[in-house]
Amino acid sequence: MTDEQEKSPDAIRVGVLGARGRMGIEVCKAVDATGDLELVAMIDQGDGLFAASDAGAEVVVDFTTPDVVMDNLHWCIDQGISVVVGTSGFTEQRLERVRGWLSRMPGVGVVIAPNFGIGAVLMMQFAEKAARHFESVEIIEQHHPRKLDAPSGTATHTARLIGQARAAAGLAAAPDATTDEVPGARGADVDGVRVHAVRALGLVAHQEVLFGTAGETLTIRHDSYDRASFMPGVLLAVRAVRNRPGLTIGLDALLD
Amino acid sequence: MTDEQEKSPDAIRVGVLGARGRMGIEVCKAVDATGDLELVAMIDQGDGLFAASDAGAEVVVDFTTPDVVMDNLHWCIDQGISVVVGTSGFTEQRLERVRGWLSRMPGVGVVIAPNFGIGAVLMMQFAEKAARHFESVEIIEQHHPRKLDAPSGTATHTARLIGQARAAAGLAAAPDATTDEVPGARGADVDGVRVHAVRALGLVAHQEVLFGTAGETLTIRHDSYDRASFMPGVLLAVRAVRNRPGLTIGLDALLD
Amino acid sequence: MTDEQEKSPDAIRVGVLGARGRMGIEVCKAVDATGDLELVAMIDQGDGLFAASDAGAEVVVDFTTPDVVMDNLHWCIDQGISVVVGTSGFTEQRLERVRGWLSRMPGVGVVIAPNFGIGAVLMMQFAEKAARHFESVEIIEQHHPRKLDAPSGTATHTARLIGQARAAAGLAAAPDATTDEVPGARGADVDGVRVHAVRALGLVAHQEVLFGTAGETLTIRHDSYDRASFMPGVLLAVRAVRNRPGLTIGLDALLD
Amino acid sequence: MTDEQEKSPDAIRVGVLGARGRMGIEVCKAVDATGDLELVAMIDQGDGLFAASDAGAEVVVDFTTPDVVMDNLHWCIDQGISVVVGTSGFTEQRLERVRGWLSRMPGVGVVIAPNFGIGAVLMMQFAEKAARHFESVEIIEQHHPRKLDAPSGTATHTARLIGQARAAAGLAAAPDATTDEVPGARGADVDGVRVHAVRALGLVAHQEVLFGTAGETLTIRHDSYDRASFMPGVLLAVRAVRNRPGLTIGLDALLD
Repeated sequence: MTDEQEKSPDAIRVGVLGARGRMGIEVCKAVDATGDLELVAMIDQGDGLFAASDAGAEVVVDFTTPDVVMDNLHWCIDQGISVVVGTSGFTEQRLERVRGWLSRMPGVGVVIAPNFGIGAVLMMQFAEKAARHFESVEIIEQHHPRKLDAPSGTATHTARLIGQARAAAGLAAAPDATTDEVPGARGADVDGVRVHAVRALGLVAHQEVLFGTAGETLTIRHDSYDRASFMPGVLLAVRAVRNRPGLTIGLDALLD
Repeated sequence: MTDEQEKSPDAIRVGVLGARGRMGIEVCKAVDATGDLELVAMIDQGDGLFAASDAGAEVVVDFTTPDVVMDNLHWCIDQGISVVVGTSGFTEQRLERVRGWLSRMPGVGVVIAPNFGIGAVLMMQFAEKAARHFESVEIIEQHHPRKLDAPSGTATHTARLIGQARAAAGLAAAPDATTDEVPGARGADVDGVRVHAVRALGLVAHQEVLFGTAGETLTIRHDSYDRASFMPGVLLAVRAVRNRPGLTIGLDALLD
Repeated sequence: MTDEQEKSPDAIRVGVLGARGRMGIEVCKAVDATGDLELVAMIDQGDGLFAASDAGAEVVVDFTTPDVVMDNLHWCIDQGISVVVGTSGFTEQRLERVRGWLSRMPGVGVVIAPNFGIGAVLMMQFAEKAARHFESVEIIEQHHPRKLDAPSGTATHTARLIGQARAAAGLAAAPDATTDEVPGARGADVDGVRVHAVRALGLVAHQEVLFGTAGETLTIRHDSYDRASFMPGVLLAVRAVRNRPGLTIGLDALLD
Repeated sequence: MTDEQEKSPDAIRVGVLGARGRMGIEVCKAVDATGDLELVAMIDQGDGLFAASDAGAEVVVDFTTPDVVMDNLHWCIDQGISVVVGTSGFTEQRLERVRGWLSRMPGVGVVIAPNFGIGAVLMMQFAEKAARHFESVEIIEQHHPRKLDAPSGTATHTARLIGQARAAAGLAAAPDATTDEVPGARGADVDGVRVHAVRALGLVAHQEVLFGTAGETLTIRHDSYDRASFMPGVLLAVRAVRNRPGLTIGLDALLD
């Protein structure tokens, strides 16, 4: 990346909502450093959304808060601006409302993703796909010791995907002859998948999914060190959203 | 697995060609230990193929040698028996002949796979899929020190798949500022992918594909300890082959 | 290794007790394949111990059973033969008796080791040494799913060594902000060290000790695939035992 | 760590030279956050060294530059202040001069260390110790792709230590049957040890030393994410230096 990235003449014009927030700042930097995207509007609390349309934004990225994101979405869709949303708090009811707004604007696309980390999303996809081919599977996630929950949300979500895939494939419980266990040694049971949460200084955010069958193991590991790791996923969505009219949930569909 | 596995009444009847070879022995044991498969014929050099049809084999598994496998295939297809082939030496010309035989027997299926290790096949699938989402990728394969080639055939094949996927996605060369290299430190260049081959006593057969982008890495690792690791892939093919008329090459299609 | 290893003229003459047991067979093969050791007696149930002295054994390796090992030891020491013992069941009382017998034979050495795996012993040594330099430490052990206990004996022993080293260094409990835990996620507490036990097909016997402090982690990992892994430790002891009069417990002292 | 760390009444009084440099800033923060150390002087270019003695500094930490560090050392030693030095550029000649100054001040200690990462230092110590017990050993180091040299200085240094230990133990070359190598696949040869350098976005600074013998491997891995990882080593030296009169080179001696 360079500060003075030369822009393509047909660069996509991008506005950022929540531009002064932690994620918004990163998004602005990432767009600015990319040749086929042009940052045309940085908008935060107190600024009008009109700045986005006035600047000719074709795509808006929203990293704001649950209390304002619905108004932002409604306004952008009505303006014919496609939106990439990283803000949380989307219930099924909210998604229905977004679909309603989009139904009247057939050319507009919206991508709402709970996780823009391409590595994490691929790890979960691969884990889900491998699940039915291995009798054994366990998850080991490793995080810094300031984390409050164990296991992590990503580990729990991965375990659920694996548990569903195993059930659909008719797999029995993973073999385990343990009869003599110091409490906790075998980890937490999440949908039939054992999950181990390691906490240590020096760690950031890591997860390993270990699959085993007779004579072989397959391990999928994701290491995340930095908020910057979400940017490739955001840029991918920005580039893709105008070609995906309607509502797209999650990064998965964009990775195929 | 148990020695006295109770068989389902509608178990698939399986014959094994090359039943006294290293792989054949394992296949016989694996079939025998599986409830929905029944081992009805063990055939090796000097035995007639008729033993398979006489025993009512519905599927034959062939781990023989390149000089007899074509005759085996021709005979089985003509008998209406589906075949799972682990024998090597299939040229495009040979595959054409097999397709010709199969065209006259629309209900018969043949699966020919160079690698029955589900873990290895999935590793390559996942690597190919992840390839276009990460600027950086390197392969580290680790084997016992009696191995003659470096890198391994699997590593070379994986590198080629990744190289093609990167080219198709328009990815530039992976970033690398190295100006001062002790010869060999940066590994071998296989289709633009750096491959490192580690050799040490104690190792068996391992491979790691490491993908990197800003702030995160994704690693796919396969560890193989034992010939037994090929059996789940063989059994998968045995179960699937009758429902896949015609020729199927590779395990990939069966894993989806 | 070769079957016809040429022997050095001053090779150490070695007898094996329990020569037809699983470990004894391996020991015989390993001694036989080593140039500076010569296998002069293979003794098992029903054979007389005199075979060892008749053959001029200088060192005897004992992989027998707790009910005969004390008689074996007594006899060997009285004959002036040094002994390497892998048999289990040594209480402090038994060790005292061995020391008594040895006190009358100042030239004889006995090495009794609960674990002849050099890798495992070094892992524990290094873990103990690193323990007081890192605020955080956790153990992840991984085994095949037929194992009955969780965590493994080696993991429990390692945790105790680390716990003692931390206490001696005045280290407080490892930092851990977890407030919301699915039961078992954070592993078992063994002497203040969190231990996670993974069980999966395809695994053999593996252990990872992860140390962490601000900005860095140090990981010591041991992978054991085979009974053969104990042989280098046995040979090391055979070579060293005559130069270590008296009783030596554990392989540690021999590794320095 | 807290911003308002309560200080012990007998906290060691510490001055920092190069206090506004990248490392100096970290040292000041680390000392400030530690109960048994008190930051009494922050000195940088343009400031007089007298500030250290005026403030009653008992230990000075020097992260300055090779052109001023000798004057700093001379002055501190003459004042009876012990010094911990992270500045580079120490030739044998320079070390001799420091020893000369120290010889006249028997109560003063100086610790000069090229690497204050406790994890890295322990990794090298353990690797050196394990070296003579394993026939096979290889090093895999992994860094961000902006790095100019391959392999890294730490990897080269580790390989040298291992090579010397192997030579001293009379070990032959590691077994390797490779006859068919794509150039570079087997890595660089550094003192008989194969070293592989991986470069990928997302990586920071990592090194793995893999030892192998029949049936087992032992792996020592160090992951460094942050300049902060050097602070525990600096603090260790600050606490120890006054009890180690004379010159101490490297962190090793302080870790025992």
